[in-house]
Amino acid sequence: MTKFTRIGIIGAGSMGGNMSLLFAEHGLQVSLYDVKQESVQAVIDMAKEQDNTRDKVTGYKDYETFMKSFNNDKQQPRLLVFSITHGHPADDVLASIRQYLNKGDIILDGGNEWYLDTERRQKEMDKLGVYFIGMGVSGGYQSARRGASLSPGGNKDILDNVLLPFLRTVCAKSEKGGDCVTNIGPAGSGHYVKMVHNGIEQGMLSIICEAWGIFHALLGFSEDDIGQIFTDWSKKSELNNNFLIKIGGDICTRHYKGDDPSSGHVLDDIEDKVVQDADNTEGTGVWSLQEAAQVHISAPTIAAAHLFRIASANRPDRIQFDKLVKLEKPRLADVLKEKTEEFIEDLRGAVYISIMASFAQGCNLISATSHAKKWKIKMSEVIRIWRAGCIVQSDYIADLLQPLYLENEKSNDEPITNILLLKPVAADIEKYYPALKRVVLLAIEYGAHVPALTASLEYFKYVSSTDLPTQFMEAELDYFGAHSYDLKSEHAMNIKKGPHHYEWKKP
Amino acid sequence: MTKFTRIGIIGAGSMGGNMSLLFAEHGLQVSLYDVKQESVQAVIDMAKEQDNTRDKVTGYKDYETFMKSFNNDKQQPRLLVFSITHGHPADDVLASIRQYLNKGDIILDGGNEWYLDTERRQKEMDKLGVYFIGMGVSGGYQSARRGASLSPGGNKDILDNVLLPFLRTVCAKSEKGGDCVTNIGPAGSGHYVKMVHNGIEQGMLSIICEAWGIFHALLGFSEDDIGQIFTDWSKKSELNNNFLIKIGGDICTRHYKGDDPSSGHVLDDIEDKVVQDADNTEGTGVWSLQEAAQVHISAPTIAAAHLFRIASANRPDRIQFDKLVKLEKPRLADVLKEKTEEFIEDLRGAVYISIMASFAQGCNLISATSHAKKWKIKMSEVIRIWRAGCIVQSDYIADLLQPLYLENEKSNDEPITNILLLKPVAADIEKYYPALKRVVLLAIEYGAHVPALTASLEYFKYVSSTDLPTQFMEAELDYFGAHSYDLKSEHAMNIKKGPHHYEWKKP
Repeated sequence: MTKFTRIGIIGAGSMGGNMSLLFAEHGLQVSLYDVKQESVQAVIDMAKEQDNTRDKVTGYKDYETFMKSFNNDKQQPRLLVFSITHGHPADDVLASIRQYLNKGDIILDGGNEWYLDTERRQKEMDKLGVYFIGMGVSGGYQSARRGASLSPGGNKDILDNVLLPFLRTVCAKSEKGGDCVTNIGPAGSGHYVKMVHNGIEQGMLSIICEAWGIFHALLGFSEDDIGQIFTDWSKKSELNNNFLIKIGGDICTRHYKGDDPSSGHVLDDIEDKVVQDADNTEGTGVWSLQEAAQVHISAPTIAAAHLFRIASANRPDRIQFDKLVKLEKPRLADVLKEKTEEFIEDLRGAVYISIMASFAQGCNLISATSHAKKWKIKMSEVIRIWRAGCIVQSDYIADLLQPLYLENEKSNDEPITNILLLKPVAADIEKYYPALKRVVLLAIEYGAHVPALTASLEYFKYVSSTDLPTQFMEAELDYFGAHSYDLKSEHAMNIKKGPHHYEWKKP
Repeated sequence: MTKFTRIGIIGAGSMGGNMSLLFAEHGLQVSLYDVKQESVQAVIDMAKEQDNTRDKVTGYKDYETFMKSFNNDKQQPRLLVFSITHGHPADDVLASIRQYLNKGDIILDGGNEWYLDTERRQKEMDKLGVYFIGMGVSGGYQSARRGASLSPGGNKDILDNVLLPFLRTVCAKSEKGGDCVTNIGPAGSGHYVKMVHNGIEQGMLSIICEAWGIFHALLGFSEDDIGQIFTDWSKKSELNNNFLIKIGGDICTRHYKGDDPSSGHVLDDIEDKVVQDADNTEGTGVWSLQEAAQVHISAPTIAAAHLFRIASANRPDRIQFDKLVKLEKPRLADVLKEKTEEFIEDLRGAVYISIMASFAQGCNLISATSHAKKWKIKMSEVIRIWRAGCIVQSDYIADLLQPLYLENEKSNDEPITNILLLKPVAADIEKYYPALKRVVLLAIEYGAHVPALTASLEYFKYVSSTDLPTQFMEAELDYFGAHSYDLKSEHAMNIKKGPHHYEWKKP
């Protein structure tokens, strides 16, 4: 087994910087490079603050000295970690370091990257005998520091025999699932899984912020009230240890000065625009939506969440439109006065099954692509590595899905392609569907914003129906497009064009 | 001016075949090729049925004789029309005919094609001195026969001086807008506009089929009742001459045997699955959604419609899920008995502004891409050529938008990037928003399927709000991702990251 003693990291931003410190803490010497030299210096300064990282991080000002600084012995492969923005930066770096690469070197791209770009780079590096591994690193900057959930994909031998033994030492650990790292599969599968993780995350972020808005608008709750509810939710039953619910509790109760309420809530001052898609610093939400469309997986919760967030970024247009129209503002729901507790419980159920919708859409997307590309991704492993260190962490959902996926993978049954068809998942949806419907009806009545909650409600309704109004859509398509259709129940199990055409227009 | 006397057409499917007959009717000799020889023969047989097309269409069995059959004089450019499936077929055809192409030849790709593939082919053909024009042909097979709405994009000189004079003779004509063809712009702009046309169409198809479902479920109306309402709607006010509403009237009232009601409604027998996205025969809906995500235009009506349609295709999973859960079935709304007329009027308003949402999302998408790519697309022209022959034809909306776009284009004002900010559009949304809300609330209450209507409602609500719950989402992103945020109203007009970060997690 290769034992790395020195590692190279390119990118000293919040993710790369924190990974540098983590690796240093695990005894590695870290060679660090960033075009922003001040970022490198900041990491070195932080390393100095701790005994076990002091003198472990060395900064470099050019690629040549950087590349020559670690494991110069060509007998030993070098491990180089990228933590840079998606798109051309990785190509620029590869072009710059190409001349210093040795056969057998390993590049671990830990950024969020479009998986087809990863596959293109894998092919380029293959020609040099260099292994390019695309790895999802989930959990944000704090997880990068303490240990993140890692989803590497690429060369099997290198992953299994060289990287996993190393990555297991630095990844997040979960109580029930152990090390949050696995060999996801070949090619761009690691980055693909991370992309979908972030797509599910977008859905969850919207669902929870919609719930927060409902607490404010319909119930008039204070931040502290809401924080307490989120904290309670995150401690039991279906939202148990749901990371985004849990930190929601922290956020709502955070005052500028420690626990002094008179200093005000930090949250109250934050603007309502989420710009990281619009400014292209984040790609995963965009790609998740594009991939769902590409492989024909209905993902309305994720889509609604993404498009809500996009619209939030364009605050200038919202300000202008607000001046032109009086539609409505969210308002207190007096009807809830007598049944606040029931409504909170409804909202909890609505949030839970909407999060399940987001998971279903994401998991089904991974399964579809894994099947099409013969990646053979083990979904039980994906759920397992999402048990700690990452943003979508949801203990109840992992407890539910992981054993079902595992059992299926061990059997000779057809692989699971749609988790809604798993009995315990279906049972939960049936249980909380009425709650979701009640919440959506009240939220719409009182003007709250519920794009992802309504999308989830409609999703459950249409994926469980065998009698959709799309019958009429099919007729319209045949009218003008000679699309041709099936008769009812003629080829119920075929997803292909029916043979019938009618000349609807009278001659 | 080049006067074409003979034209070559590759692709004898419903679009290419009908275009062949149209061109023949306009006096051209047509050389026709298709890998399916029986399709070619079918077109020749149809041509024989009419005096003015008889002997005008000639079929060919290989590319060599086909390519040598028209305008062999190299002084005169040849015009070759593609009407083939998107993707590799066009590349295959280009590879096959490449050796027979002459400098100056013009290829008019009239299929639905991904605009970046069109641009790639334009560059390849440029090297041969061949003009490759990507042209949207809208209106289905009947318009292909009678005259379609045409959106060509590519070389300006060829478009203005060679193709437009010819295309004006064969395109659809509208009373108020004249010839439904224009020079859209350079590069892939023609196919881009057609893609978005089809995206808007997807939104409209869903909205109208949802309305049809509501009539059935909540009001228990017969097909004939619904057909009469659609026909009435299409004759006046905001849905005046709305093509999809109008044909909806025809569809609902069509019996197998002419006007004999006892023969049954054709519509009643049609299966509820729309498969043309799922089977990849149609790409435009997929691409519209992907492009909206790519350029950050919030397009939830179009997205919801697309994902609904995708789910409809997967009838096998719906059948299985239906067996596992009892959610709800659409049912009669007794409360509407006393106010049926008011509700029908609400539904009309809801359908209208939801269609306007679909137009807004599509038009804003074209504007954003035109700006980014410096295509300088005149939106007044896009609206003008959509006045007849095409599927999104909506007289009221065209009457509203075309003069406003035109006035803006003639002024020195900033270009219109968001049609919601046009006063008459905003006024209509304000007028019918309460109706849309009432319809959505009742539809959800009684279990009808309303994914695109609810998405439109939420869209209007959030694009007109300056106080979104995304404030909480921004806090969550900053908590785990050190995303950083703006303070309220600090940089209201900036769509970029704010400078503040808070260490939410207590150390």
